[in-house]
Amino acid sequence: MDRIPILKIGAALLVTIQVDLHDSVAMALEEDLSNMIVKAGAKGVLIDISALEIVDSFIGRMLANIAGVARMLDADTVVVGMRPAVAITLVELGLSLPGVKTALNAERGMALIQRRVAESGLEADHAAGEF
Amino acid sequence: MDRIPILKIGAALLVTIQVDLHDSVAMALEEDLSNMIVKAGAKGVLIDISALEIVDSFIGRMLANIAGVARMLDADTVVVGMRPAVAITLVELGLSLPGVKTALNAERGMALIQRRVAESGLEADHAAGEF
Repeated sequence: MDRIPILKIGAALLVTIQVDLHDSVAMALEEDLSNMIVKAGAKGVLIDISALEIVDSFIGRMLANIAGVARMLDADTVVVGMRPAVAITLVELGLSLPGVKTALNAERGMALIQRRVAESGLEADHAAGEF
Repeated sequence: MDRIPILKIGAALLVTIQVDLHDSVAMALEEDLSNMIVKAGAKGVLIDISALEIVDSFIGRMLANIAGVARMLDADTVVVGMRPAVAITLVELGLSLPGVKTALNAERGMALIQRRVAESGLEADHAAGEF
């Protein structure tokens, strides 16, 4: 497995991180996500990290990078499913994940993105059709 | 990683399969999914297999099992993102995935489940709130 699948759901792109992220996988993910945001006109990126027991500075930096790129492309990044222990570690490491929003679970993260879509008045273009 | 994360999105549960499924992981997934269907009152299970280059008879059987259990619990199972080569192999293996619906991608699979929810008149209870 060298690529993490990205799913388009409404106006959001959804990524579930389940495996250890090596350099090449992380870089491929960043690239794939950037391309998909543009191609799909996505307004948000949901990254589920509920499977991760450890988030080190490498993954923290990757999340911040993805959020930075997504913001340039006018999309929000929401990290969901963070374990309490991971939150504690991130704070201890001094990683505040700049530009990254968080939500307790995928459903709330999706709601956050839908709200943003509704606020920007793009509802008709995206999401509304399928849901 | 011994458990595959299950995300609740509207009336559906979403699973992305990215790793090789050993017996224990597959059994844990079946169990977790069954519990989540009941707990969340889900009407559908979306299984994304776009990361899988090979689907052997073990995975085929697991998908059929999940679909069987889900049906007992009144939920549809939709497999999405199947690669053309995988479809060819499944047919060659004589695995017709009984009880499993398929859709080209997650978005269409989600639409399939939403339609089923709408038809059964349960729209107000589920999905409608967040989307």
